[in-house]
Amino acid sequence: MPALSGIQPTGPFHWGNYFGAIQQYIELQDTEAQSYYFIANLHALTTVRDQELLRQYTLNGAIDLLALGLDPDKAVLFVQSDVPEVSELCWLLLTGTPMGLLERCVSYKDKMAKGIKADAGLFTYPVLQAADILAYDATVVPVGEDQLQHIEVCRDIAQSFNHHYGEVFTLPKGKVLDQSARVPGTDGEKMSKSYGNTLAVFEEEKKQRKQIMRIQTDSRPMEDPKEPDGDVLFDLLKLVGSEEEISEMAATYRKGGFGYGDAKKALANAAERYWGPARERRAEWAAKPDAVREVLAAGAAKARAKAGEVLGRAQEACGVKSW
Amino acid sequence: MPALSGIQPTGPFHWGNYFGAIQQYIELQDTEAQSYYFIANLHALTTVRDQELLRQYTLNGAIDLLALGLDPDKAVLFVQSDVPEVSELCWLLLTGTPMGLLERCVSYKDKMAKGIKADAGLFTYPVLQAADILAYDATVVPVGEDQLQHIEVCRDIAQSFNHHYGEVFTLPKGKVLDQSARVPGTDGEKMSKSYGNTLAVFEEEKKQRKQIMRIQTDSRPMEDPKEPDGDVLFDLLKLVGSEEEISEMAATYRKGGFGYGDAKKALANAAERYWGPARERRAEWAAKPDAVREVLAAGAAKARAKAGEVLGRAQEACGVKSW
Repeated sequence: MPALSGIQPTGPFHWGNYFGAIQQYIELQDTEAQSYYFIANLHALTTVRDQELLRQYTLNGAIDLLALGLDPDKAVLFVQSDVPEVSELCWLLLTGTPMGLLERCVSYKDKMAKGIKADAGLFTYPVLQAADILAYDATVVPVGEDQLQHIEVCRDIAQSFNHHYGEVFTLPKGKVLDQSARVPGTDGEKMSKSYGNTLAVFEEEKKQRKQIMRIQTDSRPMEDPKEPDGDVLFDLLKLVGSEEEISEMAATYRKGGFGYGDAKKALANAAERYWGPARERRAEWAAKPDAVREVLAAGAAKARAKAGEVLGRAQEACGVKSW
Repeated sequence: MPALSGIQPTGPFHWGNYFGAIQQYIELQDTEAQSYYFIANLHALTTVRDQELLRQYTLNGAIDLLALGLDPDKAVLFVQSDVPEVSELCWLLLTGTPMGLLERCVSYKDKMAKGIKADAGLFTYPVLQAADILAYDATVVPVGEDQLQHIEVCRDIAQSFNHHYGEVFTLPKGKVLDQSARVPGTDGEKMSKSYGNTLAVFEEEKKQRKQIMRIQTDSRPMEDPKEPDGDVLFDLLKLVGSEEEISEMAATYRKGGFGYGDAKKALANAAERYWGPARERRAEWAAKPDAVREVLAAGAAKARAKAGEVLGRAQEACGVKSW
């Protein structure tokens, strides 16, 4: 079934992004009939209002995905703003979307509650998201639990359009991401950009090692044995270490008498090895930005062909075509 | 200076539409450097949710304008949905538009107050309108008094974008239409579709005559002289009669001793003569709808060239291009 994943270019990916979402996104290129990946720069506009940053984040987002294994021969990778059909579809959908549906969206209510100045882009965000999904007849849309409501909004909008104008849109289904793996940040809290505790996936190796060496640990006396699960260093090692390293480290924790410094070094080594191949691929792609742009252009052409077909159906249905 | 007029395809034009707006729109093709006219079918979607009606209204709107003197060699005539750039621009503008700006719009508040079910299209309508205006660097935008607020909203949105991203948009000015001429409907009230008292510009002649013969008049005794101004028949004659007819009819009113039937016949005759040439041109265009479509396609190509240039500036400025 066609799958769709949009990734906001709002800065470098961190381990939490990767293990909680991107890794699972990329797997879809092998399990689904067709998969679409887009850099959601139009969505990012609601938060990144610096042209140069947004440009960098956009290109880097694409490079990161390619480095992390997205294969342009299997999947369609493109930049959202390269598909005008989605903006066109967005307006058609806006005209039938009840205000109440958007007012109830948690993402909007949350930002309002936090005192973030609300603009119409933030408010109508779920409608652009619906246009993104519907434009590709995507049925598999992997999302975090917190985004499930937006999939419901998309289904509501699509159903109400179909009800009024006939069967135009394919109803998507949210596929809840497995976010059970704990990805703690450098302070032990959940890794999150807003906590400033992230480890970037493509951090320069020396800097990453330093960041790992500075991870906050508890003041357990060295002699005491410790349950490894729930410890920040061990939880991170579970993500990037080999099976052998993980079971060895678990045994060390349970035995006691070890220093966190050693655990940190082991984690840094494992991390360097784990991200190594992707880091190399990243360097290759980063050295030829025009090749990345070609991948994105080819992806946009494929995406536009599909989105144009769906937009055409919608335009015919509501009478803004073939007068 | 570039002028822009959008006409909603929501049904046949009536005399009120013509004398209050369309006549003045069309004059701009002779007084301004460039004039753009579009059939605002994307706006109409907020009210016309019948595909076949919207199609008919759209084509007929274009035919009506051509019949009423819009000259495709002087002006650019096109259908709004044929310019995807406007929908793209709409999203870029939405992301910077404060909710409060839209919540204060009278058109939205009025409809809410009347209990009209609000959808996001109605709410964000002024942003699409702003995109329409800004996409053509239009500086002259003729509007009724009641639409002046939307021009202000457009200026606010453009200024705030320019302030943040640099000088991208040209600020438009509203040009208030002369709506001083009284255009009463068949019941003596202001002619308006919502009162059901309209005389359509291109009504079939026999039917128009019947409608005029049924205009409600007062029960003044035939002998009494009457002040012509303010009388529904005389006010309508002033719009379509020759100078001679008007002064003759004024004298008759003031003398008294005439029947309304004669005044109605005189009005019907004048109307037939007044609309005659446009009616003939309309029949010619209506007989060759493909020629109308060609005019619209050529207009859309010109409009897209201009809108593409402006959209490009906006996209560069906010960083969703040239990454």
